[in-house]
Formats: sequence, C-alpha cells, structure tokens
Amino acid sequence: MNSFGRIFRIHIFGESHGQGVGITLDGVPAGLPVTFMDFAEDLGRRRAGAKGTTPRKEADLPKLLTGVFNERATGAPLTILFENTNVRSKDYDKLREMPRPGHADFVASKKYAGYEDYRGGGHFSARLTTGIVAAGVIAKKLISPVHIEAKLTEAGGNPDIDAAIDKAMEEQNSIGGIIECRAQGLPIGLGEPFFDSMESLLAHMMFAIPAVKGIEFGSGFGAAKMKGSEHNDNILSMDGKTGTNHAGGINGGISNGNELVFRLAIKPTSSISLDQQTLNVKTGKVETLKVDGRHDLCVALRAPVIVEAATALVLADLMMLEQLTVRRIRE
Amino acid sequence: MNSFGRIFRIHIFGESHGQGVGITLDGVPAGLPVTFMDFAEDLGRRRAGAKGTTPRKEADLPKLLTGVFNERATGAPLTILFENTNVRSKDYDKLREMPRPGHADFVASKKYAGYEDYRGGGHFSARLTTGIVAAGVIAKKLISPVHIEAKLTEAGGNPDIDAAIDKAMEEQNSIGGIIECRAQGLPIGLGEPFFDSMESLLAHMMFAIPAVKGIEFGSGFGAAKMKGSEHNDNILSMDGKTGTNHAGGINGGISNGNELVFRLAIKPTSSISLDQQTLNVKTGKVETLKVDGRHDLCVALRAPVIVEAATALVLADLMMLEQLTVRRIRE
Amino acid sequence: MNSFGRIFRIHIFGESHGQGVGITLDGVPAGLPVTFMDFAEDLGRRRAGAKGTTPRKEADLPKLLTGVFNERATGAPLTILFENTNVRSKDYDKLREMPRPGHADFVASKKYAGYEDYRGGGHFSARLTTGIVAAGVIAKKLISPVHIEAKLTEAGGNPDIDAAIDKAMEEQNSIGGIIECRAQGLPIGLGEPFFDSMESLLAHMMFAIPAVKGIEFGSGFGAAKMKGSEHNDNILSMDGKTGTNHAGGINGGISNGNELVFRLAIKPTSSISLDQQTLNVKTGKVETLKVDGRHDLCVALRAPVIVEAATALVLADLMMLEQLTVRRIRE
Amino acid sequence: MNSFGRIFRIHIFGESHGQGVGITLDGVPAGLPVTFMDFAEDLGRRRAGAKGTTPRKEADLPKLLTGVFNERATGAPLTILFENTNVRSKDYDKLREMPRPGHADFVASKKYAGYEDYRGGGHFSARLTTGIVAAGVIAKKLISPVHIEAKLTEAGGNPDIDAAIDKAMEEQNSIGGIIECRAQGLPIGLGEPFFDSMESLLAHMMFAIPAVKGIEFGSGFGAAKMKGSEHNDNILSMDGKTGTNHAGGINGGISNGNELVFRLAIKPTSSISLDQQTLNVKTGKVETLKVDGRHDLCVALRAPVIVEAATALVLADLMMLEQLTVRRIRE
Repeated sequence: MNSFGRIFRIHIFGESHGQGVGITLDGVPAGLPVTFMDFAEDLGRRRAGAKGTTPRKEADLPKLLTGVFNERATGAPLTILFENTNVRSKDYDKLREMPRPGHADFVASKKYAGYEDYRGGGHFSARLTTGIVAAGVIAKKLISPVHIEAKLTEAGGNPDIDAAIDKAMEEQNSIGGIIECRAQGLPIGLGEPFFDSMESLLAHMMFAIPAVKGIEFGSGFGAAKMKGSEHNDNILSMDGKTGTNHAGGINGGISNGNELVFRLAIKPTSSISLDQQTLNVKTGKVETLKVDGRHDLCVALRAPVIVEAATALVLADLMMLEQLTVRRIRE
Repeated sequence: MNSFGRIFRIHIFGESHGQGVGITLDGVPAGLPVTFMDFAEDLGRRRAGAKGTTPRKEADLPKLLTGVFNERATGAPLTILFENTNVRSKDYDKLREMPRPGHADFVASKKYAGYEDYRGGGHFSARLTTGIVAAGVIAKKLISPVHIEAKLTEAGGNPDIDAAIDKAMEEQNSIGGIIECRAQGLPIGLGEPFFDSMESLLAHMMFAIPAVKGIEFGSGFGAAKMKGSEHNDNILSMDGKTGTNHAGGINGGISNGNELVFRLAIKPTSSISLDQQTLNVKTGKVETLKVDGRHDLCVALRAPVIVEAATALVLADLMMLEQLTVRRIRE
Repeated sequence: MNSFGRIFRIHIFGESHGQGVGITLDGVPAGLPVTFMDFAEDLGRRRAGAKGTTPRKEADLPKLLTGVFNERATGAPLTILFENTNVRSKDYDKLREMPRPGHADFVASKKYAGYEDYRGGGHFSARLTTGIVAAGVIAKKLISPVHIEAKLTEAGGNPDIDAAIDKAMEEQNSIGGIIECRAQGLPIGLGEPFFDSMESLLAHMMFAIPAVKGIEFGSGFGAAKMKGSEHNDNILSMDGKTGTNHAGGINGGISNGNELVFRLAIKPTSSISLDQQTLNVKTGKVETLKVDGRHDLCVALRAPVIVEAATALVLADLMMLEQLTVRRIRE
Repeated sequence: MNSFGRIFRIHIFGESHGQGVGITLDGVPAGLPVTFMDFAEDLGRRRAGAKGTTPRKEADLPKLLTGVFNERATGAPLTILFENTNVRSKDYDKLREMPRPGHADFVASKKYAGYEDYRGGGHFSARLTTGIVAAGVIAKKLISPVHIEAKLTEAGGNPDIDAAIDKAMEEQNSIGGIIECRAQGLPIGLGEPFFDSMESLLAHMMFAIPAVKGIEFGSGFGAAKMKGSEHNDNILSMDGKTGTNHAGGINGGISNGNELVFRLAIKPTSSISLDQQTLNVKTGKVETLKVDGRHDLCVALRAPVIVEAATALVLADLMMLEQLTVRRIRE
C-alpha cells in the first residue's frame, strides 16, 4: 500500500524517470506555517553531489500543489510534487533483458506482468524518498521540540567513512553502512499495543526505505547475548529516566521517556560498474552484465536525512493519536 | 491498534490475569476446515513445561466461539478464546509500587493513567501470543504448501542451547536468544510498494511479539559490511533462483522466489529472581526489588512457534491480496 | 469488513444460533467507568417482549470479557460477549432448501459457497445488533453531554403506531417504519472531508443495521423539491445557530452546531407467517414456503436504541479525532 | 479522511481556486489500458456549459502524472491532475465576512480556525468531483461488463426537467433534484458483513458528493409503508432473479444478482443570486448578502456522471476483494 499512518497520513506516488515524484499528506493541522524555503535544508542533505553519490543531479524544487494557502497549511490534503528534469532513460532500455542483481527489476516484471515502468527502477527508485524527506519536514515541525538526529556511523564496516568511500571509489565497488538514529524529548506513552508498538511502526516505515535490511533498537542483537541482570534498565526517577538505555527508549512497545535509539543496516548499492553474471530473460541464459547509468557508491551516505524524516512521520502520527500535538494551530 | 492485516485481518484482546485472551480473524475463507484438534500441536509448542520455561501452566484449550460451523470456517469472523484458569494475581499486587525494570509496568501506568490491568502485565503479557499462535494455525492452512520453520539458533550467545539454559538456571539469571525463521515455497511478487514491503510487514508483526528487539533479513547487519559485488545475488534461472541469498528472498520489498530468511534478536526475560534496584513510585526513591512470580528464564525458548505463526499471518494476507489464496474454498 | 472506526474502533462477531454474539472496542479511554449495570437500560430497550416483537427472548446479559478492571476501562480492547441461550435451531433446518424471500439466505449461500452458518440468519441476524447497543452504551458516555434520541415516527405508513401494530397482528403480516434520530449539543466541526463527511459515516453505519433501506438528513428527499431560497438555512448567531434546519445540522459534510436530524426507512420484517412463493434450490422450482420460527412483526419497534447506539459510535470516533473527547480519563 | 477503498483505493486532493485538483489511485491492475482520450466523454458530461450550469468553464484536461507508461497502468499509484486555469478569486474575498448560507464556509472556518482556503469553497468545492469522475473512468474499465447508468429523474419536483430549469432561470433561484442510478450485470455476493454492506459503502461514497442529502435503495422510503408480503421479492430462478425488485438488488447487504437501484436526493445549489439574510461574522449582526460569482442553477444536472463514477469506484473495490476482477492484466 502506498499509504502510511492513521491520522497523520501520507500517500506516495511517482517514478524515477516519469514526470515526477510526490507525496500527499492528510491530517496536517490547519495553520501550520509551511513555506517553500522550509524544505531547502533537508532536501539539500538528501541531494546528490558529495563524494560517493550519484552524478545525477535533480534540482528537487518542491511544488506545493495543494493544501497550502498564504504560507499556512489549510487542513486539506497537502500535496508536494517534484518534477523530474534530469532524466536519461536510454541508460535503462537494454536492462529489460537482463534484470540487475540486487534490484527490483526481476520481481517487478513478475509482479506487474511486464507493465511496470522499468526506467531507473520506476516506482521502486530511491528517488521516491524525496517525498519522504519533504513530508518529514512537515512532521518535524509538528513534533517539535522532539529532536531527531541520524548519522552514518560506519561504511563498508569502517568507522572512518571518508577512507571507506575512497577505497570503494578506487575499487569501483559499492559499500553498505550503518545508520544510527537518536531522538530526544519524546514523551512517555507513544506506541499502541498490541500491533502498533513503537518498534513495529518505526520498523515498518524504515523497511520502506530502499536498501534497509536490518533494524535494532537499543542493544538490539547485542541484547540476545546479554543476561537479564545486565540488560534491564533500572528506573531511577519519577520521569522514567533509567541508568542504562539497553531498551533504546522503549518498553513493552511504548516510549519510556528516555532517548530513542535504533540502528539500521544499509546494504551496498546494488548498481556497480563491475561485471556481473546474471540471467538474460530473453535467452534464458546467464550472461555478463555491465551496468552503466549514474549511481551512488554508498546509498547510506544520503540516508540519514531520510531516516530522520521517516522517524518524524511515525512520531507525528503517534503524538497526534495521543493528542500530544494539535489538530489545529491557534496563535 | 489491536488489529493487523488488510484482507485477512486479526483483532487481539485479553489480559494475563483477567478472564482470558483471544483473537478474532476476519477474512477467513468460507469452507476452510477448522477443528479443535488443529490447534493442539502449535499450542503445545508454545506452552510452558520444558526446562527454562515458567512453572505457570495453562491448559490453553481453544474455544472456537464464532465463525466455525460443522468444522468449517463460515466466512464470518472467527473468534478463538482461551480462558485463564491458572491465575495467581496476588504475586503482582505489591509490584504496583515498584515497576519492574524491563517490563511495561511503568509506561503502562503512565499511558493509561493508572487504570491498566497491571496483573501479570495485563494486556502487555506474552500470554496474548496464545491468540497469535492460534491464528497462525489458520494462516498456515491458507498458505500451504508454503512451509515456515523458525528455530532458536543461540541462547545467551551460546549455540549449545541446552548448556546455556543450565548455566542460566544455575545463575538464577535470564538470557536472550536469536530466532532464525525460514520459509520455502513463496511465490514471486509478495509485498506492496511503497510502504508495505515484505520486510515492513514482517517487521511490523514481529515487533509486536514481546521481547523482540531486532530483525534482519538475509545477510542483514552483515550486509552493511559487504561490497556490492559480494552482496548482490546473481539470478540464475527463469524462476528467479539466485546463486547466493544475501537478500533473504526479498528484492525491492518483494519476494523473489528464493527462501525467505530472517533473524530476530530476543532480549533476556525481564523478570529475574535476583535483586534489582529500581524506583518506588510511592516514595520516589530507588529501592531494592525482588520479583517473585513464575517466569521463563529464556522466553526465546517458546518463541519459534509464535514467530512461525506471525510469519504465516503476514504471508496469508499478502497472498490473499495477490489472489494467490482464495476467498472461498470449493471442493 | 467487521470493523468500523478510525480511533474508537469496533469489531463485531457472532451468530444467531452459535455460542454467542459480541463486540470488541479498541480505543476506549482508560479510566472510563464501566459496570455491568450500565448496559441494562439500553439492552432492555432492544430486547423483545413488547407487542409486535419476537417471542424469542434472550437474557442479553453482557459478559465483560476483557478491557475492564475494577469497574474502569483499562485502555486495552474491551470485549463484550452475549452468550446465546434460547436457541431453537431446528426451525431453520428445512429453510436450507428454500431461501426466504427478503433475507440473506440466498446471497449468503452463494457468497460463502454453502458453508455459512444458516441457522437463524447466522452472522446476518439482527441479533448481532446486541453488540452494537452495548458498544453504544460506552460511546454515549464518551460523547456526553451530546444527547441522542431516536424514535419510531410511523409504522406501516401510520403515525399511530399502536394501531398499526394491531392491524399487522390481525393480518399476520409484517410492516416497516420510519425512525427519526436527533442529537443535540454537537460541537461545530465534526466530519472529515472528502470522504468522511458526517453524512457518509452515519449512513455507512446505519446501513449496517439490518432492514435499513434509506436515509435522509434534514429535509432530505424533500430538499430535492425545494428552491435554494427555501432550503438555505440562514446563519443567525456567532455559534452558528440557524433560523431553519433544512440541512439537518450538517453543511459540507461538517456538523454546524445545530441539531443533527436524520430519518431512516426500515423495511417490513422479511419473515412473515403468510405463504410465499419462492425457489426451491434443490428442485430448481418455485414452490410454496411457510416460515415458522419466531419473528418480529415490525423490526422498527426495536430499532431506535440501535440507531442511537450506532449514532453514538460514529460521533465518539469523530469527536476523538477532533480531540474533543480524551484518550485517557483523569480524575 | 481523503481516502476511500480497501484494495482499489483513491486519495483526493486540491482546491477550487488553487493550482489544481487531482486524485491518486492505488491498486489499479498493471496492464490496464489507460490513455488521455479515455477521459474525454465522462469529463465532458461533468463539465459546465449546458443551460442551468455555471458559466465558469474549465478545460478539464487530465494530466496523467504517474502510474501510466506506454498507455498502460503500471501497478504503481496512478495520479491524475487537473490544473485550475479559469480562476476569478476576487469574487470570493468579501465572502470571508459573510459565510454563505448552505455552504461549508462557516463550518470550515471553525474547523480549520480560519486557515482554510476559502476561495470558491476551497477543498469543499464540487470541483473536486473532477477527480472522482476521472477515477471512475478507470473503475468502469475494471468492472466491465457491469453497466452503470445514472440519470436525473426530476428537478425542482418536476419530471419535465427542461421546464424546471427554465422556471428556475426565470426566478433566479436554484433547484434540487433526484438522481436515479441503476447497474446491470452485478455478480451475486458483493458486500461485506457486518459494516461494509453494499448499501453502507455506496452511501458512504455518495454522501461525499456535495449536495447529496438522501439515499434510498430499491423501494427505499416507500418500503417503510409496505407490508412484508408486498415488499419481499420472491426468488424465481437459480441465478437469483426475483419477480419484483423492491430490495434494489441487495439482500442482507449483499448483491443478489438483480439490478442495483438507488436514488439520491440532491439539494438545491446553495449559491443563489437572490438576497439572503445571514450573519456577518465581523459585526456579529445579521445582514443582507448577495452572492455574485458563477454558479449552477441546478447542480443535479451535472451529477449523474459523478454518481456513476462513484458507483463504479465502490463496485471495483468490492469486485477486487471478491477476486472477481484481477490484480494484473494478462493478454
């Protein structure tokens, strides 16, 4: 489903090489200040340009199509459109015969019986995350003063990320990475039993981000090796602050007032310049594929702002459900 | 929200020390054979009894309250109730003052303003998973011949699980573990972009299971340290079979026809017999807590059947959405 | 779908001649006082007994299965069960061959391929509305001081309802009726564009009540014959009060602060003692059917309390969405 | 909520005098032929121009923004945008002080705290139905060969609609009307107990159309005056055909294989040129309002194609749920 959320809802659409990508937000409180310039910083962080990112550069100018009037949200659906401008579809035409390993090419052609827009990954492209980042800008306003920060803590297994990128460029290979996300200032009580635990909703959203293959909260996989006496976070004060934070700020699926901490495993970019052996669906034989196009060496480089946005979207919906953010702004 | 699923939907209810726990399934195809005996095996696997599990024993007899007639599903909501019989609530009365570290006691009392049923964790209790296992029995029938198997691969960091339990018993401490789940026979094409990727839905469901703190698909966190040339699974045949399976059977959020593989991190049981320091919410001071009651040393021991059930529930809904399982049984 | 609502959600289950009928409420604010006795009055109004109602009498004792602790809602799912006691299923066995005109027998057997519980209408029985009435008792508490009152304004086309019932009894025929429902004290602003207008949600819910075949708001069908200058309700005060109320309290799908007014058309009870010609599905021929069993002459007699409950359920969800009722009770 | 549907879902957005209005469809089967020209006929029927309709004329050219590739649906969200071109917002500026009787002006300004886009009704404008008609074009393809036809059967209480319009023009007043909608070829079994009866879903959708104030199925309000022996439709053949069709093709909320018949009450256009007394929210006094702008004398004239589209949208979702239309087109 291309929708997420219960009260603060988002609906995503678009393709990498079509007319554009965008997102519609339903449930934005009327009166929330929204201007074109609000989006610049976060979209800038997502945009390509730095070392290790794709040479395809999109201006990523958000078009506030609906739901904003006099620089305020109106309470009606807020649609943000990003028109595609820098499109080179010919790069992808020959890939029809040879689905790229690691990409959705093969499964998409099966699921959609060959009618999918295959250019640049179509609806599966990471370009769709532009909409997530834009929606996150709105969500961050709503959950203020909760502060979210995500960063890349290692790339290709190396905490020296600059060195890791240099090495990958040298090897013409791609690398994965670990994103760590932390949020301070969360109220106690977010998350809904039984199925909408904080972990459930955050994980649901995070696994929508292309290339995410794992998530852990607090001590996560490390907790599986711990003893109860080590893992339990002793509660020390009436506002729920604990001595340690092995739980990552969540007990029983509910935020406990401590820092929210989770980590994401990002796989290496599937597109690599090196030769790969894969199926030619026309001949039915395994052949050599060389992917041209323009790609990121490490998608994880651009992911932190997407992860922050995704986190903000989940928190905004949960806080609205808990009536901790308002349905209308009054000033 | 206490519901999950789009077409094949479940609604869970109940408390650990109330009258019972149960689940309602909406969307079970009319005509599906359902008898009391179908539930015996999986409920038996979840039930306590083995070394390292709680001494509290419940008969766990499923009462097929609605939706079954002449041993067939009718197409109407199918409600399964488990009455609580072996309840010793006095164990929990004194805990009101001292919320147990690692448990939902503190957050529940904040979220529900002190009105929650605090006995034995109330609605947060792992006893609720009885309903998940029962619903999973129905789901497994629907997705046949897809076969799911989950197992505990290590406990307390030790692959010799028997030894790990012995040590934990000796130390009177609890331990966590890793559950690995594999499913064979999945069709290509399950999972719905953008937000309902296979990983998103499975993770959403898995994090509803108490004590789960991490999930990874295929190589998971290992993938973050790999190069693209290592991680990409080369497609070798027209049915999508790949040489390696670093993706865990999912590309672009869609099942690719290979084995589904994921692992869960289970934290150590929060209840331990050892003394713990924690807040007394009445005095506002940190005091010594000793948890009595009856507990598992390693909840991960009983988790595999729950994980299988949870997986089956997600797959059943996705297969129904893809029209790969029928809305009605005709014979 | 057997669920309704976004935040204040209900899930219904059960059959007329199975073990029972019930309802689960998700989203009841923790702390709301709920006792067994709260249900007596409204369930009494729904129960049979009066002239023109079915001789089948059920005690209708609500079993508060989950979600209530110390006579307060806990915030967890609140399940109310009504066990069936007065069941005479043999009345219905012979009807398998001859689906009753006006009933769901024929469509149910097609939709569920013959596996439906056909006894007494099964899941299609008006007995399911016991759960609606019980849930409505909770909803009425939540929306207080909004006051809802529904009444039967005519039966069989006659405003003298007592006379209409006498005549129907004499003729051994069934009759329909008109229910009018009014609610005072609604805040301005309930209803959500575009698809969740007040009228949309109320109509959705009302047409779930068996035998409802029409709904109109304010002047309704009369409005279709009016001129704009007659129909427009002039606004006279800052709190939105209008001179007339042709709109029935709703403009643009949003409550306008005036009295909510709508009317329902209830068809005559389908079960009648008179001979009817209908298909014998075994022989494929039209034959004479005589329905025995125990039936209402005029289901509309018992409908007002159901309509009130259904209205309260819609309003509770909308008020919760507008944050006009709380998620938690604090005292 | 600005979304409707379970599998075949629509999300609507836009304002009357903003940049445009549009709709996103989620769940369109991949491979469905979709071209620009498909929309011409139905959009032409909705468009103004005829006697009694507004002089505001929009080209209503659908922009297929996403989800279509090589004139086929791709399976990804299909977004259709209609840019606003013929906008004269100054007409509406002075109305801020005097909310128009019958319109959403007053309730919108309360609900959205004055931040709503008030120009031309903003998100409440009937212009939004352009998206419904466009989505209906897609839905009609899906449900083929089911055939839907809606028509205006009376205007201002007069079956001679041409005469009724002439009289209204002469009186400078607006009039309402009755729309009757019929659909042939429906399979038996559409509609989902308990809450998603055919009537529930159709009514939900129809009341989202501005100006609809009543709906009745089959004999509807007439049924309330009938006896059971008159109203019951005797089943005459194995495919469920009945002698009469008082039920309008629906029993127990489920389609019964006969013609679907329902009628809608459309209120007179709220905008009239005649003087009206209403509140000036700035002065708090009742004053004389004269509405200029460009308006329909009888919105019901343009409603039939909207009603058909709305019907098709409901049927498409129900048929997809029943697996009676496919998730993918294969040719």
